[in-house]
Amino acid sequence: MAVLRTAAQLFNERGFHATSLDDIAERLNVSKPTLYYYIENKDQILLECVKMALDLMQTGIGEVRAAGGSAIDQLKACMRIYSGVVTQDFGMCVIRIGEDPLPDPLKKELRRLKAGIDGHFRRLIEEGVAEGALAPCDAKMAAFMLAGALSWIGRWYRPDGDLTPDQIADQAIELLLNGVQQRAPTKVTT
Amino acid sequence: MAVLRTAAQLFNERGFHATSLDDIAERLNVSKPTLYYYIENKDQILLECVKMALDLMQTGIGEVRAAGGSAIDQLKACMRIYSGVVTQDFGMCVIRIGEDPLPDPLKKELRRLKAGIDGHFRRLIEEGVAEGALAPCDAKMAAFMLAGALSWIGRWYRPDGDLTPDQIADQAIELLLNGVQQRAPTKVTT
Repeated sequence: MAVLRTAAQLFNERGFHATSLDDIAERLNVSKPTLYYYIENKDQILLECVKMALDLMQTGIGEVRAAGGSAIDQLKACMRIYSGVVTQDFGMCVIRIGEDPLPDPLKKELRRLKAGIDGHFRRLIEEGVAEGALAPCDAKMAAFMLAGALSWIGRWYRPDGDLTPDQIADQAIELLLNGVQQRAPTKVTT
Repeated sequence: MAVLRTAAQLFNERGFHATSLDDIAERLNVSKPTLYYYIENKDQILLECVKMALDLMQTGIGEVRAAGGSAIDQLKACMRIYSGVVTQDFGMCVIRIGEDPLPDPLKKELRRLKAGIDGHFRRLIEEGVAEGALAPCDAKMAAFMLAGALSWIGRWYRPDGDLTPDQIADQAIELLLNGVQQRAPTKVTT
């Protein structure tokens, strides 16, 4: 696990291609043969890092779905999980590196996991519309918009930045639920 | 230009690493020496593709800014430009491949161009808040949310999909401006 986490940190800092197995061994303070005892190659490390993050999301979302409640509350909880994961080392890897460097069969496996997460968001949006809490919309498109805005957090987030992951999640949820436009003041019937 | 466009298409279809100069020459129906007459290496092609897209955005946004008008109308126009570029070959390259495979000095150059585009969005959001059309918000965070949602279009867009780039832009602007939440009906004073 220390191997994966250290590798993820290096990938996120330097990029996948600029990180060598030597760099990983050096930061872990182990010899290259020791490192090879744990892992086969860089592709395998990236695969494991990305899977770890997607599993975290999938498990978190599964728990939210199992606990039930209104669709909009579940959607907010899932957005918070998504945002939280992409501010962690493995989650950043999903966004900053992704599956591009991996060979086709591994790409496909990761895309299948991602599609599962996307499916949860689509269904929650459809349920939210049916419950009247969300505005009628194309659920596929709306799910992509939410995922895009939340994924991007993994690109710009800096642990030493102004905002904590919780503050970022709060603001992201507020912006995506209410939009950036000022709402017309609701006039009270006199 | 045909070289760059063909390369961008292959990068977007197969990934940067899975695309060789041989693949590019083959699709262009030219010999490898002929291809080398135009380009030095794969890094240079990627750099040129990404720069082309960022220049398109920068130019489009510059024209919107120069034409003036309310901040919210300018913001909508800039969102449309952004969304339009990421559904084109070069723009997809920015999102699907990005600068990760490139060496550090080139990465820096591309990040500087991206920061310029981000700056326009931040200022437009600040102006929109000052004009009262946008809800008070953290402009930096809001600009990242818009850019994230719009950038993601370049990941999922398929030219043979259900929606045209114009329809996608319309829906994206609507969703990001108004949010996914149903707005409370405005009560008319009686």
